[in-house]
Amino acid sequence: MSRWISQEAERLAPYTPGEQPQDQQYVKLNTNESPFPPSPKVLKAINRAEILKLNLYSDPTCAALTEAIARRYELKAKNVLAGNGSDEVLAFAFRAFCGAGQPVAFADVTYGFYKSQAALFDLDVKIIPLREDFTLHVDDYMDFPGTIVIANPNAPTGIAVPRNDIQRLLEANPDRVVIVDEAYVDFGAESCVPMIYRYDNLLVTQTMSKSRSLAGGRVGYALGSPELIADLNRVKYSFHPYNVNRLSIAAGAAAVADEAYFAACTAAIRQTRAWTVGELENLGFTVLPSQANFVFARHSQLPGETLYRKLKENGVLVRWFDADRIRDYIRITIGSMEQMETLVEELTAILEEL
Amino acid sequence: MSRWISQEAERLAPYTPGEQPQDQQYVKLNTNESPFPPSPKVLKAINRAEILKLNLYSDPTCAALTEAIARRYELKAKNVLAGNGSDEVLAFAFRAFCGAGQPVAFADVTYGFYKSQAALFDLDVKIIPLREDFTLHVDDYMDFPGTIVIANPNAPTGIAVPRNDIQRLLEANPDRVVIVDEAYVDFGAESCVPMIYRYDNLLVTQTMSKSRSLAGGRVGYALGSPELIADLNRVKYSFHPYNVNRLSIAAGAAAVADEAYFAACTAAIRQTRAWTVGELENLGFTVLPSQANFVFARHSQLPGETLYRKLKENGVLVRWFDADRIRDYIRITIGSMEQMETLVEELTAILEEL
Repeated sequence: MSRWISQEAERLAPYTPGEQPQDQQYVKLNTNESPFPPSPKVLKAINRAEILKLNLYSDPTCAALTEAIARRYELKAKNVLAGNGSDEVLAFAFRAFCGAGQPVAFADVTYGFYKSQAALFDLDVKIIPLREDFTLHVDDYMDFPGTIVIANPNAPTGIAVPRNDIQRLLEANPDRVVIVDEAYVDFGAESCVPMIYRYDNLLVTQTMSKSRSLAGGRVGYALGSPELIADLNRVKYSFHPYNVNRLSIAAGAAAVADEAYFAACTAAIRQTRAWTVGELENLGFTVLPSQANFVFARHSQLPGETLYRKLKENGVLVRWFDADRIRDYIRITIGSMEQMETLVEELTAILEEL
Repeated sequence: MSRWISQEAERLAPYTPGEQPQDQQYVKLNTNESPFPPSPKVLKAINRAEILKLNLYSDPTCAALTEAIARRYELKAKNVLAGNGSDEVLAFAFRAFCGAGQPVAFADVTYGFYKSQAALFDLDVKIIPLREDFTLHVDDYMDFPGTIVIANPNAPTGIAVPRNDIQRLLEANPDRVVIVDEAYVDFGAESCVPMIYRYDNLLVTQTMSKSRSLAGGRVGYALGSPELIADLNRVKYSFHPYNVNRLSIAAGAAAVADEAYFAACTAAIRQTRAWTVGELENLGFTVLPSQANFVFARHSQLPGETLYRKLKENGVLVRWFDADRIRDYIRITIGSMEQMETLVEELTAILEEL
């Protein structure tokens, strides 16, 4: 850090993203991307005419995108805020609904970025440990007076919380905001979106990075009551009014409108996940019950770090977290069937060496 | 604001961007966009193969982009941070170099977004008025102990500060950071980039929104010593690691490499600006001396608001600011020659009605 850095920036806890080698030499199963290209409708949407208009600012309200999202989720555009990935949307939410006298609670084992964002806004954080089996019990949050953030399904465990449990949280205290981060919801968990009209203290965030094959397009969004969305806009217009670029607006609107492609991709991932879990269990892995596009698995004979290293040496990238409680695990993205077959082959070879 | 909003978000001062009608029914001279499409190299860079890779995250380090920018400015990649527009880069800089004990100073008449960002991070702000003729004198900043932000050329005045003046500021106190916002530098002002190797407390921000016809692509960047850039990265990785999407990385890298197109576009704007200033003066306007791709002008017989309204009624959008000292003025983007001819025709008609 330089000698000019502010005290506030010194205290930050920057996030370390998964490795992003740009040369495509790996079977890349480390950052939960989709193995499928974006919808053909996205290819059509990013056309010559759109590119020629890049000299003009994007629509700060992202109307084409928020309207397309609203249509898909049977909401109104005023229930939607679009962002440069859901990371940005989450940052807006942390600023909008947390601060002095409004602490934030999240799990000990969850998306690592929450800690970074809490540090960015210097928030009081209450860490509420998952149970022994990595499940989240909403009872552990009932008495917490501040804002609650729950990744559902959770990362990196993949374990989902039933919608009814979130509903109990919402009802227990309407004076606090519950943020449900549904980045991975499209692979089998129950979305809280149908409860948005009923609970004005519910904010759901989603992303097009996983189920809609747009990680590189950076399109995320928040869904909630118009009051919550207006607060998020207040932050957005203090940070970056033109936060979503023209091509991402076009790509996101096209992607969210292609229901058939979305259904086919998510079904394929679920099927491949079931196959992968079976194979991993045959190899002696313990696999947490995942509703996401990844699985979290450990092997009694090899520590997570060794698995990660040996797989990497053999051309397969998975994610290993050097963190308490999960050091034994590796997180494996569910890619294409072919990629998972390679993974299983490599794991088989690694275990045979033992 | 909702009943859940944080105190900090309540205190924000959200920025109001210029109107962005999406239907192209206006001659749009209100947000300082380029009238020219992006470089043909950008069209080539955003191709089918790139779009098909949108399922993969963008490179968080934006290496292809920062390296292209570094090449253009004879710097190293470690001197460059890329962002989702220079607004984002500026936000990172406000957080990195301002805070408790580190106030920030900027002019009373300058880019309105600085106030929003200062409020976002709850900074102590010292407003230093421009002189009577809207020039900025660095002597007025000499004794200020905190971080200084200077838009050069300034917006919405268009008036530039000589590089030597900035150099005096940098030398007067190496313990403070001077941020020079060069969003409009390519239309005639002296850039401070050549001083980056010499002054490690100098941070320059630039954008591809104006001179490189990529407003809709959202590509901005900061140039500075590796120490300052590392601090900005600390903030970036606390806010949004994948802040620039794949297509904007590709577009930005292609745009900054097309020197001939850049030179042609900026030369055309300067020529059209000279013509426009002459015509406006013939019509009785007082025009501030602009080094930007816009002019700031007032007419003794019509208030700024009236000019703005009448032009809008006649299909020409310019920007009017309802703010002290500049209420008499309108800010007119320098568009294509044809657009400026329309503007002059409409102004002539409006003034003939008097």
